[in-house]
Amino acid sequence: MSDRFITMVGGSRGSLRVHDVRALSGESLDVVPYLDVRPWLAPAGDSVARWQLSGAVSNLRYATSKEREHYGSLQPPLGRAEARFGALIPIRKSAAWWELPQDTRRSIIADDSRHIAIGAEYLPAIARRLLHCRDLGSPQPFDFLTWFEFAPEYATAFDELLARLRATREWEYVEREVEVRFERIVS
Amino acid sequence: MSDRFITMVGGSRGSLRVHDVRALSGESLDVVPYLDVRPWLAPAGDSVARWQLSGAVSNLRYATSKEREHYGSLQPPLGRAEARFGALIPIRKSAAWWELPQDTRRSIIADDSRHIAIGAEYLPAIARRLLHCRDLGSPQPFDFLTWFEFAPEYATAFDELLARLRATREWEYVEREVEVRFERIVS
Repeated sequence: MSDRFITMVGGSRGSLRVHDVRALSGESLDVVPYLDVRPWLAPAGDSVARWQLSGAVSNLRYATSKEREHYGSLQPPLGRAEARFGALIPIRKSAAWWELPQDTRRSIIADDSRHIAIGAEYLPAIARRLLHCRDLGSPQPFDFLTWFEFAPEYATAFDELLARLRATREWEYVEREVEVRFERIVS
Repeated sequence: MSDRFITMVGGSRGSLRVHDVRALSGESLDVVPYLDVRPWLAPAGDSVARWQLSGAVSNLRYATSKEREHYGSLQPPLGRAEARFGALIPIRKSAAWWELPQDTRRSIIADDSRHIAIGAEYLPAIARRLLHCRDLGSPQPFDFLTWFEFAPEYATAFDELLARLRATREWEYVEREVEVRFERIVS
């Protein structure tokens, strides 16, 4: 995941074994046995892919310099050997969300929902990466691809993190969310 | 310009006659006689296009609810009959800019550079539209396509607006900027 543009391929092959695919809001994605992370320009071809979701690593949209200073050093890298478990959670927010001005969105995320602070409580156990899809030229079914990696012993903490975030005001604007849980195949 | 994804085609045909193409920073674009505005999925083909620049209309990145309330009603629509003159000004900012956290970027734009307030002084004379290209999947040479339309009598005011913005701290982060001035062909 070092390139800025990435495609997640759900299908019959991949380096991650999928445990579970389920919709939290809106339509689900097809259940697939494997998930693969590829550079943008390496489509999987029909024989492997049931679905492909692309996204871009982009600039921070809400975090302040204080928050980055405070939490940035806690943020672990992706691909830690012990962090064999993980989840891809694509999310789409409503048109009403995108119509809101910047300060209102920031206030819902940071003040009302404490999204940044809640996420930080689970650092460095749960590594994460946010990909943006809304402004990709090729139409995408989601606005974000959120990505998490953690060691098996933090699976319960991860469930708790998700439950807390989903109970926030920010989540009232989520109109589609699918959880794809996986385990890295150790060869 | 009603679709969210748009391609600007500089070449041998188009609905806008190009007066001038010049670089303010970095490499220029080829001088072309015409400019055309097309939906994303309507490439011009090599025989017409010397260059094509794509962008997406997206959510507000910096403006607050107060600013939107204050200036939103002053913002004229695109395509006014009298606004025959205009400019496409693609801009790329530096990697250092994109590394800055949200509050620092907002502070440079709004507080140090008064970008939003300066732009508002020229409303409703100068209509504008901002397209984002940085997170498009197909690699783009610029981060933004800025677009302006005004009546011929406001051409001097437009030059002044550009000069004022280019003198701000925000512009220290601009590493490529090309000005494409045009006039709508009235049939």
